[in-house]
Amino acid sequence: MISEMEEVSEITVGETNMAAWLLGIQTIKIQPYHLPPLGPHDVKICIKALGICGSDVHHFKTMRCANFIVKKPMVLGHECAGIIEEVGSQVKSLQVGDRVALEPGISCQRCSLCRDGRYNLCREMKFSGSPPNNGSLANKVVHPANLCFKLPDNVSLEEGAMCEPLSVGVHACRRAKIGPDTNVLIIGAGPIGLVTLLAARAFGAPRIVIVDVDDYRLSMAKELGADEIVIVSTNIKDVGEEVVKIQNVMVSRIDVSFDCVGFNKTMSTALSATGAGGKVCLIGLARTELTVPLTSATVREIDVVGIFRYRNTWPLCIELLSTGKIDVKPLITHRFQFSQKGIEDAFQTSAGGGNAIKVMFNM
Amino acid sequence: MISEMEEVSEITVGETNMAAWLLGIQTIKIQPYHLPPLGPHDVKICIKALGICGSDVHHFKTMRCANFIVKKPMVLGHECAGIIEEVGSQVKSLQVGDRVALEPGISCQRCSLCRDGRYNLCREMKFSGSPPNNGSLANKVVHPANLCFKLPDNVSLEEGAMCEPLSVGVHACRRAKIGPDTNVLIIGAGPIGLVTLLAARAFGAPRIVIVDVDDYRLSMAKELGADEIVIVSTNIKDVGEEVVKIQNVMVSRIDVSFDCVGFNKTMSTALSATGAGGKVCLIGLARTELTVPLTSATVREIDVVGIFRYRNTWPLCIELLSTGKIDVKPLITHRFQFSQKGIEDAFQTSAGGGNAIKVMFNM
Amino acid sequence: MISEMEEVSEITVGETNMAAWLLGIQTIKIQPYHLPPLGPHDVKICIKALGICGSDVHHFKTMRCANFIVKKPMVLGHECAGIIEEVGSQVKSLQVGDRVALEPGISCQRCSLCRDGRYNLCREMKFSGSPPNNGSLANKVVHPANLCFKLPDNVSLEEGAMCEPLSVGVHACRRAKIGPDTNVLIIGAGPIGLVTLLAARAFGAPRIVIVDVDDYRLSMAKELGADEIVIVSTNIKDVGEEVVKIQNVMVSRIDVSFDCVGFNKTMSTALSATGAGGKVCLIGLARTELTVPLTSATVREIDVVGIFRYRNTWPLCIELLSTGKIDVKPLITHRFQFSQKGIEDAFQTSAGGGNAIKVMFNM
Amino acid sequence: MISEMEEVSEITVGETNMAAWLLGIQTIKIQPYHLPPLGPHDVKICIKALGICGSDVHHFKTMRCANFIVKKPMVLGHECAGIIEEVGSQVKSLQVGDRVALEPGISCQRCSLCRDGRYNLCREMKFSGSPPNNGSLANKVVHPANLCFKLPDNVSLEEGAMCEPLSVGVHACRRAKIGPDTNVLIIGAGPIGLVTLLAARAFGAPRIVIVDVDDYRLSMAKELGADEIVIVSTNIKDVGEEVVKIQNVMVSRIDVSFDCVGFNKTMSTALSATGAGGKVCLIGLARTELTVPLTSATVREIDVVGIFRYRNTWPLCIELLSTGKIDVKPLITHRFQFSQKGIEDAFQTSAGGGNAIKVMFNM
Repeated sequence: MISEMEEVSEITVGETNMAAWLLGIQTIKIQPYHLPPLGPHDVKICIKALGICGSDVHHFKTMRCANFIVKKPMVLGHECAGIIEEVGSQVKSLQVGDRVALEPGISCQRCSLCRDGRYNLCREMKFSGSPPNNGSLANKVVHPANLCFKLPDNVSLEEGAMCEPLSVGVHACRRAKIGPDTNVLIIGAGPIGLVTLLAARAFGAPRIVIVDVDDYRLSMAKELGADEIVIVSTNIKDVGEEVVKIQNVMVSRIDVSFDCVGFNKTMSTALSATGAGGKVCLIGLARTELTVPLTSATVREIDVVGIFRYRNTWPLCIELLSTGKIDVKPLITHRFQFSQKGIEDAFQTSAGGGNAIKVMFNM
Repeated sequence: MISEMEEVSEITVGETNMAAWLLGIQTIKIQPYHLPPLGPHDVKICIKALGICGSDVHHFKTMRCANFIVKKPMVLGHECAGIIEEVGSQVKSLQVGDRVALEPGISCQRCSLCRDGRYNLCREMKFSGSPPNNGSLANKVVHPANLCFKLPDNVSLEEGAMCEPLSVGVHACRRAKIGPDTNVLIIGAGPIGLVTLLAARAFGAPRIVIVDVDDYRLSMAKELGADEIVIVSTNIKDVGEEVVKIQNVMVSRIDVSFDCVGFNKTMSTALSATGAGGKVCLIGLARTELTVPLTSATVREIDVVGIFRYRNTWPLCIELLSTGKIDVKPLITHRFQFSQKGIEDAFQTSAGGGNAIKVMFNM
Repeated sequence: MISEMEEVSEITVGETNMAAWLLGIQTIKIQPYHLPPLGPHDVKICIKALGICGSDVHHFKTMRCANFIVKKPMVLGHECAGIIEEVGSQVKSLQVGDRVALEPGISCQRCSLCRDGRYNLCREMKFSGSPPNNGSLANKVVHPANLCFKLPDNVSLEEGAMCEPLSVGVHACRRAKIGPDTNVLIIGAGPIGLVTLLAARAFGAPRIVIVDVDDYRLSMAKELGADEIVIVSTNIKDVGEEVVKIQNVMVSRIDVSFDCVGFNKTMSTALSATGAGGKVCLIGLARTELTVPLTSATVREIDVVGIFRYRNTWPLCIELLSTGKIDVKPLITHRFQFSQKGIEDAFQTSAGGGNAIKVMFNM
Repeated sequence: MISEMEEVSEITVGETNMAAWLLGIQTIKIQPYHLPPLGPHDVKICIKALGICGSDVHHFKTMRCANFIVKKPMVLGHECAGIIEEVGSQVKSLQVGDRVALEPGISCQRCSLCRDGRYNLCREMKFSGSPPNNGSLANKVVHPANLCFKLPDNVSLEEGAMCEPLSVGVHACRRAKIGPDTNVLIIGAGPIGLVTLLAARAFGAPRIVIVDVDDYRLSMAKELGADEIVIVSTNIKDVGEEVVKIQNVMVSRIDVSFDCVGFNKTMSTALSATGAGGKVCLIGLARTELTVPLTSATVREIDVVGIFRYRNTWPLCIELLSTGKIDVKPLITHRFQFSQKGIEDAFQTSAGGGNAIKVMFNM
């Protein structure tokens, strides 16, 4: 592998596009990435900021994520923003030099789910950085123009890259119909819990309580605007007692609970804490099967809605960032360069737990 | 107890209102029932038809149903219809002699859930025949006029009594938004599965597949209009294979699955069989906790909606019966008189399993 | 009439409850008001703050409002708050001394619309201060406890009274599904336009443009948080040009337009300015018939939704006031005492146009 | 032009694809139609059945329809079905010989409206037979494969062509949320009124009343399943009296009214007849501006929803035809051959009024 890399280094002194290829478990190398030809509706983008997602870390550590298995070298990364370098012949909405955030999923746009507006469920989805599709941790990528969203001057490229994780929170809030009428419980104060917090606030949730097992994360949540924080255990037997504590700090009823973790305990807490006629939104997917009190949720007609990625969220994310209703900058806790060492350090930081929320490449 | 009963028998030769009181496990006696005074918005009804519900059988066998415990003698029954004998001073919508079906739940009408139209979730609900509220297996009962719905000439009193179980199917179809766009899977061909089948057909479901472990019930479902029936096992390991079989007989995708049973296996089947973006409606509540593949449901954005009883269903049920869009008569498999022996036989028949679908009293 | 008033003055030195009775066109007198007996679910409230509504002014000037005609002396007023003086035997949620805001409409709670949660459309609604029902401009009134909403310490009685007009804005935003995805145009910057502005902001509308014919009102709207204001004419021929101007200041598309006026011109502007798939919410009812370009709205599938009063809005209004998300205090431009002169001055001020937004009694 | 046609006739004896070109007002000629190349996702279809739409007749008579003006020769027609003759390289869902119905509108699939599932509102829509896009009254056409829907054996090609007008009724019923809970009034018993009737029946509407000025059309509606028919006038002054008559024959309340005409009178009737909380769906677009009682609709919170064409309707239409829930065959009142004379006669028949409902070409 080394010889290959050296060869690459020489070529780099010139025009070669380089990318971070996942070659094996915990093995990432910067190597050339030959881009596909630019289609009439495509643009070429110089990537300038890219964040590491939990799924990237899964790929890095295990060569798989859920049912998706990395079977051949793959460029990682999909939370990104950059600058347009070239536009396809039919592209009217963008021009060279535009700063854009990239929506990473390319759906078929022809199937019935796509035609019905639920393109995130498209079975032919080509999602950047999810096998077998190459991602965006590269100098340059080619992407459909309609999935590149222009950033206003007051939204940075790093914030542009943050539109991807923020989209998860926004989609969850849309699915759970968050508004001034819905008090919100968020379970889990990791990156997804925190973007859900930011989104729920922007959607007008009057009161937000967030729980976690980790003090540092909760303090971050508090800084980001949670009304109350509650530290909880990992012991399923504590559910009853903790639900009482959570309901007490909420004061009024809980209308929507987001489970951003996905364990038996977190989902049981969500189902038990939510008021009659409310909703539980399952976002975290730590376990395939869950043992949960669905019956008591049923007799109180609590709907369980789950989310898979997002749809049509970039314009809203950019609007929320631009108007200052959401500030994602505090979530970016670490920054690295796009170099062999930078990549290795960045992934070790992301994988290592610790206090990293969002690890970002500046390119 | 015997002396009490004899005393009652004497009184009966006259005006005394008699009712079927649950006095202990498997112990029901016909005894006098002194009605509350008739309020200005109430009516007095001579009950003429009353069906036995699964919850009545639970009370009969165990003195409880779910969290509701029978702590003192209680009149059983809540699926009923009768003839108006007296109307309160403010009642304008009904008159003496009207044939009516009774909605058994009296909600507070003042709390926020009631005011928001979700009165079935009212925490102060007084539900006939659920402890501590007396039911309707009596010669006469007093009930709010606005919960008594006039039957047209072509709807019998027995059919009127069937509005109660049918309401469960109707409410489930409303919650799951059944229409010509939704292919339906129903799991369980007992009384609730069958009324759900009838309702789904009336709501325009294009194709309905129903599964059960019992051949007789499935043959009944087929006669009632199921497009396809599938016999299944009680073994959780068969879920994968059975889902393939179910999807094959459905031909096109399953949009909504109703679990009318509530076991791990039935709910796992429902979650696995339903197409992306679809819904699973949980009606049967056999188990408090369920171990189910919620994660795979989440990544396909399948909503889980449960139902508790029903709301605002009587006018629609009566309309569907009156126009012939639904025929509930085949569900009534056994009939008994309102006598000590009739009651004992009726409850033994209901409790005994066998081929009883709906056991009805003619009074 | 004078002798009657003197007699009253004497009695007042004691226990007599006094109210402002509308006796004829532009004729209001303070006279005794004998309250109905306190029912088990009622409370008696000492009114402390009451605002004058446009409908009160209509009654004052013409003895009618829309189809409702004042045929006998009537106590005016329905935007109010006060302090509980006595509670009915069944009232558990409130106690003597509680500060409460009053929802003025008493629906039947028995009809199908009430049972379905749309009680504002109840045909038997008894609405305070709308003929033939007496209003609340009195020392004391009796009202159902579940229509009296407790104010937290940080919400004043005046703000409590403002829950009524604010409810119109809140209900409109709910009906139009306002959220972070909906850019909003508001036509008319009178009291209703301004509460709609406040509500839309609280519901998360990213960008709000408001138009009016009056500079002063627009400057008030600007202070209250409108992103852009546009002065318009009353000439129907200007619609096309003004729509272009409005769309230009909105920059992005208009998702929902509120017509808070109800003229041909305002509704034509709303229908023309709104983007495909959007909504127009009609609130102002200046004209019975409107001549409007409904066809062009249809081919862009713009829904027209109207509102009538509100439902289930008080808890949310109080929450929004308590958390500071909405500040209604700037809308209160004039204050008067509850005296014969105070009432006359207050109604003249309200009726006189000028710069009065909300005229409030302190009692 | 004659010489041109003769030349064509010679070429026809061979391979030339011929189409019906609109050359001027009331001037249609069969001439060669050179098809565009077959793209990878396209199919080539031999058209076998094509119905004449009201918009085709508008084009024929006036060279325009609404704002769309025919500026150069254009092939007419868009209600059609045929047999696949060739498939593009990427087409997997269809094969040569498949019988298919064609959805005529080709949306961009890239804009935000398309991505949101509302592709019928796409501003870059290319709609067959609407200027400047050629239609399908031709031996062969090229069309995207995902807009060609395979017909089961028991659905004829003529019925396949009828999916287009039926789609209008289906889309209207979806937008108005028709189901067993909605009694329906349909105003206008022309082709659109009749397909709305068929669709509303299939969606489960319990009771449907239809009104028109024409006895023959009403008798057709009665045969197609209307519960009641009412003859009305064209005089606006009759609205009040007619609304009473309509409500009387409906017996219970009107939940949804479809105005399939679009005059002041029809829309006023719809708004006045519909019950509180109901909906009026505007389909017919006879007038650009309408003078209507929107205020009385607002105080009863009646929503006005309009429709523009349809979206995602073909699969449902085919299902409804295949299962026999809808029978469109009685609507086909006239049939013609695809010849110069056949075309001239067909358009004269369609344009001539009389009793023609749907005029169909067999090719």
